[in-house]
Amino acid sequence: MKVAVVGVGLIGGSIGLAARRRLGALVSGYDPAPAAREAALARGAVQRACASLAEALDGADFAFVAAPVHVLPDVVGAALAASGEDCVVTDVGSVKRAVVEAVGDPRFIGGHPLAGAETAGVEHAHADLFQDATWYLTPTAATRGTAYERLHRLITRLGACPAAMDPATHDVVMASVSHLPHVLANVLVAQAARVLSAEGERLPATGPSFRDVTRVAGANTSLWRGIYLANADALVDAIDDLMARLRAARELLAAGDGDGIAAWNDAAREDRRRLFESGKAGGEVFELVVPVPNRPGIVAEIALALGRQTIDIVDMGLYPAGGTHGTVCLWIRGDAVAEQAEALVRGLGLEVARA
Amino acid sequence: MKVAVVGVGLIGGSIGLAARRRLGALVSGYDPAPAAREAALARGAVQRACASLAEALDGADFAFVAAPVHVLPDVVGAALAASGEDCVVTDVGSVKRAVVEAVGDPRFIGGHPLAGAETAGVEHAHADLFQDATWYLTPTAATRGTAYERLHRLITRLGACPAAMDPATHDVVMASVSHLPHVLANVLVAQAARVLSAEGERLPATGPSFRDVTRVAGANTSLWRGIYLANADALVDAIDDLMARLRAARELLAAGDGDGIAAWNDAAREDRRRLFESGKAGGEVFELVVPVPNRPGIVAEIALALGRQTIDIVDMGLYPAGGTHGTVCLWIRGDAVAEQAEALVRGLGLEVARA
Repeated sequence: MKVAVVGVGLIGGSIGLAARRRLGALVSGYDPAPAAREAALARGAVQRACASLAEALDGADFAFVAAPVHVLPDVVGAALAASGEDCVVTDVGSVKRAVVEAVGDPRFIGGHPLAGAETAGVEHAHADLFQDATWYLTPTAATRGTAYERLHRLITRLGACPAAMDPATHDVVMASVSHLPHVLANVLVAQAARVLSAEGERLPATGPSFRDVTRVAGANTSLWRGIYLANADALVDAIDDLMARLRAARELLAAGDGDGIAAWNDAAREDRRRLFESGKAGGEVFELVVPVPNRPGIVAEIALALGRQTIDIVDMGLYPAGGTHGTVCLWIRGDAVAEQAEALVRGLGLEVARA
Repeated sequence: MKVAVVGVGLIGGSIGLAARRRLGALVSGYDPAPAAREAALARGAVQRACASLAEALDGADFAFVAAPVHVLPDVVGAALAASGEDCVVTDVGSVKRAVVEAVGDPRFIGGHPLAGAETAGVEHAHADLFQDATWYLTPTAATRGTAYERLHRLITRLGACPAAMDPATHDVVMASVSHLPHVLANVLVAQAARVLSAEGERLPATGPSFRDVTRVAGANTSLWRGIYLANADALVDAIDDLMARLRAARELLAAGDGDGIAAWNDAAREDRRRLFESGKAGGEVFELVVPVPNRPGIVAEIALALGRQTIDIVDMGLYPAGGTHGTVCLWIRGDAVAEQAEALVRGLGLEVARA
């Protein structure tokens, strides 16, 4: 298997290392910066460091574009242009609408591994970076089913847990659980810096709460400038919602409303408990067999329907059967979850049976 | 040495354990809840579990009041009434103005160890809870110098780093670095819960940022209700300041101002770096000898003057010399810091010499 990595920093380099170590793949890498190419070669993240995109993509089965968010539409477009008809092209950007809307190619699937946002550079890359991490995939009706199935399997074999989501939902969820916490960390350190400086005090050797909350403050500007700009609308909505909640908390405090404060705090504890309770089903893995018409988008449709109900597809197989039909096999963990998946698939107008 | 602990939960119990293990003290404990008294005895946090405040305080050299913030003025008052003329009484509340303003006794010094806010109960108590933790002390002009000196030494021997601060500054700083992060954690989980629920998604197995930022969401309501109420005015100010900063960030995002976003993010990184850069001086410890008039408040004055410049007093001794004069010895780490301390002490109109 040949894997091409476009952009060999932390994420691209880790994909290279994981693909080599876990899949025995031949990994070619391209990066516009010669020093980055050399570092990737030295780190063992790629076997071939290429001076052009075309050279890296030559004969590739998969191409991962790990470029800054704002250049993704261009670089993904160039990668698609330089790659063969059977190559699956994906990206690893933290914001998905712009690139997915710009690229309609059936060989392309937007992607976003939730890993490694805080260090940078191939020198921090490692083969286990994606172990057990959620790796969002954002297929659309234009996505070729075999491309999705192949990418899903590859990502599973890199150690990650693929989860299908539509690009708009992805961006709204990330605005809330990733980008907004970064904004809050930034404003919180600015506020604390002002207070401490005004009071002539220094940060106390305090408990970990302030340190934790502000750990991501001022994260890598070259990366985050692009993320903030690309997801500005969703993030502005999230900030507005948060400010309304802050104002409500402020009113409880200003009114000295102890019961209101207690109820608000209890609700937060309950929200947190529910957010972090494990969504993972346990138990046996069941194989569901779904005969499907051979039309574009059907695999994406199934993946997104299950993704919307937060059902993990442990593994996936797509088997063509003649020109107009094929079979999708889905491995789902847990009897009840598998049953729910069957119902969802039937809801798409498809038949389904357990193997 | 006899130490009394009023309220034997996590903090009171840990004080008891540390005083027994590190100082060989005889520790008496009182708690209004019989079960808490039994648990403290079973945990070894106290040698004597007393059914009344008076019994616990009988003959005590030090009394630590570890009661909920809203009852501190009453319980500290009762402890002072029940304790001898040479007993030093302190508390461990997270908010300091109310109790310090309510209590004018020269034997009382407000205190606040920055440790252990997240678990509760004597079963989590341990003798090392305060190791290297900042332990704020809020002496006033009414504070007896010998009381401050004895408490400072005791706290040092419990493993903590005492730091003098006036009560109002303490509350403003805590509003910013502790109470506000708790408020933000609460509103952030509420926001994320709404978004994920609206999108039918669950929290991704994401990087640690969201988990870190929201770790303290919904912290112990019985504790935090009191903290929020007691520091409501400072916290409302901090929220207002934070909202102004959030609005500014929102405008940069809404305007798509990439350079502004980059500058804002860089500033946050710089704020964070400065906040967390170690304020600890290294090097040799110097002894400063300060002859002082024997008048109330002089020790508090020295401690607060050094505290305002974030100078740690490694250790402190107070030696009476006749009826009207005494000597304060201050141990300060680092030649330059000691020199700065000397200048500050001279600025108070006192003489100072290195031993």
